[in-house]
Amino acid sequence: MKNEIQERIEFFQRSQQSRGRLLINCPDQPGIVTAVSQFLFEQGANIIESSQYSTDPKGGTFFMRIEFDCPELSLKEEILKNNFLPIAEKFIMKWKFTFVYDVKKTAIFVSKELHCLRELLWEWQSGDLMAEVALVISNHEDARETVEALGIPFYYIQANKENRAEAESKQLQLLEEYAIDVVVLARYMQILTPEFVSAHPISIINIHHSFLPAFVGARPYERAYQRGVKLIGATSHYVTNELDEGPIIEQDIMRVDHRDQIESLKKIGRSIERSVLARAVKWHLEDRIIVHGNKTIVFS
Amino acid sequence: MKNEIQERIEFFQRSQQSRGRLLINCPDQPGIVTAVSQFLFEQGANIIESSQYSTDPKGGTFFMRIEFDCPELSLKEEILKNNFLPIAEKFIMKWKFTFVYDVKKTAIFVSKELHCLRELLWEWQSGDLMAEVALVISNHEDARETVEALGIPFYYIQANKENRAEAESKQLQLLEEYAIDVVVLARYMQILTPEFVSAHPISIINIHHSFLPAFVGARPYERAYQRGVKLIGATSHYVTNELDEGPIIEQDIMRVDHRDQIESLKKIGRSIERSVLARAVKWHLEDRIIVHGNKTIVFS
Amino acid sequence: MKNEIQERIEFFQRSQQSRGRLLINCPDQPGIVTAVSQFLFEQGANIIESSQYSTDPKGGTFFMRIEFDCPELSLKEEILKNNFLPIAEKFIMKWKFTFVYDVKKTAIFVSKELHCLRELLWEWQSGDLMAEVALVISNHEDARETVEALGIPFYYIQANKENRAEAESKQLQLLEEYAIDVVVLARYMQILTPEFVSAHPISIINIHHSFLPAFVGARPYERAYQRGVKLIGATSHYVTNELDEGPIIEQDIMRVDHRDQIESLKKIGRSIERSVLARAVKWHLEDRIIVHGNKTIVFS
Amino acid sequence: MKNEIQERIEFFQRSQQSRGRLLINCPDQPGIVTAVSQFLFEQGANIIESSQYSTDPKGGTFFMRIEFDCPELSLKEEILKNNFLPIAEKFIMKWKFTFVYDVKKTAIFVSKELHCLRELLWEWQSGDLMAEVALVISNHEDARETVEALGIPFYYIQANKENRAEAESKQLQLLEEYAIDVVVLARYMQILTPEFVSAHPISIINIHHSFLPAFVGARPYERAYQRGVKLIGATSHYVTNELDEGPIIEQDIMRVDHRDQIESLKKIGRSIERSVLARAVKWHLEDRIIVHGNKTIVFS
Repeated sequence: MKNEIQERIEFFQRSQQSRGRLLINCPDQPGIVTAVSQFLFEQGANIIESSQYSTDPKGGTFFMRIEFDCPELSLKEEILKNNFLPIAEKFIMKWKFTFVYDVKKTAIFVSKELHCLRELLWEWQSGDLMAEVALVISNHEDARETVEALGIPFYYIQANKENRAEAESKQLQLLEEYAIDVVVLARYMQILTPEFVSAHPISIINIHHSFLPAFVGARPYERAYQRGVKLIGATSHYVTNELDEGPIIEQDIMRVDHRDQIESLKKIGRSIERSVLARAVKWHLEDRIIVHGNKTIVFS
Repeated sequence: MKNEIQERIEFFQRSQQSRGRLLINCPDQPGIVTAVSQFLFEQGANIIESSQYSTDPKGGTFFMRIEFDCPELSLKEEILKNNFLPIAEKFIMKWKFTFVYDVKKTAIFVSKELHCLRELLWEWQSGDLMAEVALVISNHEDARETVEALGIPFYYIQANKENRAEAESKQLQLLEEYAIDVVVLARYMQILTPEFVSAHPISIINIHHSFLPAFVGARPYERAYQRGVKLIGATSHYVTNELDEGPIIEQDIMRVDHRDQIESLKKIGRSIERSVLARAVKWHLEDRIIVHGNKTIVFS
Repeated sequence: MKNEIQERIEFFQRSQQSRGRLLINCPDQPGIVTAVSQFLFEQGANIIESSQYSTDPKGGTFFMRIEFDCPELSLKEEILKNNFLPIAEKFIMKWKFTFVYDVKKTAIFVSKELHCLRELLWEWQSGDLMAEVALVISNHEDARETVEALGIPFYYIQANKENRAEAESKQLQLLEEYAIDVVVLARYMQILTPEFVSAHPISIINIHHSFLPAFVGARPYERAYQRGVKLIGATSHYVTNELDEGPIIEQDIMRVDHRDQIESLKKIGRSIERSVLARAVKWHLEDRIIVHGNKTIVFS
Repeated sequence: MKNEIQERIEFFQRSQQSRGRLLINCPDQPGIVTAVSQFLFEQGANIIESSQYSTDPKGGTFFMRIEFDCPELSLKEEILKNNFLPIAEKFIMKWKFTFVYDVKKTAIFVSKELHCLRELLWEWQSGDLMAEVALVISNHEDARETVEALGIPFYYIQANKENRAEAESKQLQLLEEYAIDVVVLARYMQILTPEFVSAHPISIINIHHSFLPAFVGARPYERAYQRGVKLIGATSHYVTNELDEGPIIEQDIMRVDHRDQIESLKKIGRSIERSVLARAVKWHLEDRIIVHGNKTIVFS
């Protein structure tokens, strides 16, 4: 199985040798689009997809995502970046080139509930999630069989309130060892310390099982039941040091009614969690998200 | 216009002379459905629609709504109630007969934003909301023209933090004078005192412009914008003395994205508010809602 | 894996020894609910859930589904049926008792696309689909590994236009051998003959990859793309001899736009197909569906 | 009322004196974005919003919509167009500049059902639909009161199968007299002849009361009821000479169930029709729609 998936990733990489992306974030002013598109044209790149947004044309912030095709891109990475410097400086840009063949190395954290993990692995197997799932880390053994059956390394690391520092130290070591780009918390039921979070800024994606900001914190379905809501939801967000307060990437809801007891809310909720997290991870892998303050611009 | 609507209400009343409803709420135990349906059968009533729900068949609470047809019902109202007493006592029921031809007298409270009022009046004109809209009360003059054009009495009562007691005293007097059954707060931007609320328990319906319990209180769209949510919503609930904490009747949401500024959120929100409030009011008028603790059972 | 699931089914059966359902369908007239609830009460059964619907209280058809709890039900099955006969005759009922511990034996048919099969197996593993998945039949080998890994017998039966009679004869033999109650076509891309269909009336559930009646027949996503629709959908229905014309059980849609090419429509569609088919199968297993003419009453 | 709305339109026009849009449609090739953005920059225009789409970067069709701000635009209209000619020719473009202060003159056609007309007028009154509603034409008198109360000219023109040519001749004369840009069929229940349609290509917007291509033609709710669908919908599309086959602009659906009789389907449907048509008209007024073959690209 692993080999088959590995082959598909390699095929994908070969087929995407000329595909890159440019993400920009700068004060809005006339001439940005012209300068950037002129630049890409001169480098021999053809724009495939372009999205832009400005918080306010007069004095606001301008965001752009361009996906482009450029022959022999892998040989030109550094040239491209160097040539772009003058434009970036002129417009005071935060900017980033990414290269589609650099498939992002991904770690998935999970606890006992496996539905989000399974959805991600499923999408990954079917080629809809173009990542390298490098390892899975869990504080329980429940996921081992599923994970190892796909040839993915599985690491059990005991984690609880008492041993947090020790657990995170082991986890961080593994993330470094595997050169991880993005961490997905697929219903990982432990709180991360500020040290952990700051080691991976804007690249830890969580799924919270409520439509935030309702029901921040623990046991949201129980509290949704108590409150008698008619909708339940899930929210995927980047992790920051404020619990459940990070930039929201995606949310969705489903309708419930008085007949739904807590178990039923959880069951319905699982299906929302699965799809919301999968969409958020996909957008992240495709560099469709720009974080600005505590919000996201999603060029979906 | 008024005459035409009045005619329609009268036609409706005549056509519904035999239609009644029975709402029940009691400890669950075997035999309730049998006893109630047997009773209705013996009274010559035919069950048209029946809904039931039990929080737990073993020791839970049982809820039932029955809509029935009974010839010459208006002559039998008291007999029906008297005959039902033994059953009600046996099963320790909270119960209520309502008669569809007793069209509920409704007061609408509104401030400056008229979209919810307009939706209600529209549905009312087209016969989808079977109420008698007896009067509209506002702390602004904006709605007067729309309301009076339909022949509905409009009362301007100044209301703000300073004169709350005085304003409510005038409002309560009008509600009594018109023998009001249900008060709809159609974006009425004043907080009601416990005295007002306790004078109309479980018959004041509010629309809050967020998916509660997110953004309780003032300026929810502004706060939704600050938080960067990807969904905005509205919630209709019965008013209690806890601000925005009353039993939720209905909620709905719409998708927004990073391009939606506060004005855009409000615009999108207005369309959710309109439909959510209209559904909640309709269910109340049709006696489809049973309040249990701080939750609603809605037999929609 | 198989043993674990087998254990769960057996546990479920033991825990449901007293749970039964009664489905009724008869001309509407006063007294039905009374008679039926009286009957159940006398048999010592407690009504857990009851749903009813009448096409028209005056001369229409009445439908009822009752779920009840009756101690030692498995010993009383025949008594119950016999005792009910006079009521059934009096009201000219079509009726059926089912017993929740009689877990339905299910066959899944699949071709090359496995997403619907996987969803069903997943829900089944997690206990959300209370069936005995007795076997999987396919005209391709793609599903074998997934199916056999769960300990479920997998049968490859070549099937195409040329050998239809022969293929169906083998399939029918297997269905008989395994005493199958319900057949689920989880993207099985062969048309069934009238002989096959009539051998399993109202117990073959199909998923069609469009919001019927749009795009009846082959290649619906291609045709949706050509037509430029803004929504794509899926429909689960009982199979009859009219292609894609059987009683609809459930439908759902998702929004698409001009950027979605055919591959993208298929990918989005797969997620709709999965959830629509899973819901339809679940309702069938829970005896929540009554077929009336070419429509379904779903007491969900 | 009219004066107030007229004032708002004039205020809007004054506030939008520098706002224009450019719509492009041409064979895809490298350099288009660069050339266009360079051009706008040189004309002193600042890009406010830009959307683009290519059916295929290699040999496909490229679409772009740019909204820009250009001081003293109304004085530069012709210069802009002239200066753009060389670019347009080089890339073989279909192209169009529009100027936001040229508020589109709109005619609404309606028959007896007024819900779509009311929704449009409401959105128009509240400033959400920036059009000049120049006149309303109907083959019934039902809408007169509503329309004239807003100060809009109302024309009754008898129209049926027998007098189609005569009726359309009067209608076309009025459209010419009022210099109409766009015709909205807000549940106008007459079929238009090819002559009428060809007089206003891609500027007649219809609302069809089904999710096309299901239930093309007459009485869709009746047929939806017969088929037993679980979703009903509405479709807004440009009118062509093929009945209900024109390019789809927008669609939406709502869930229904076995309890919904035809009247109920119509009621639910009305609310979908209202919002779907309003969205389609808004996108058209904002030049967000490009028609390509029989499909629409909607840059919403």
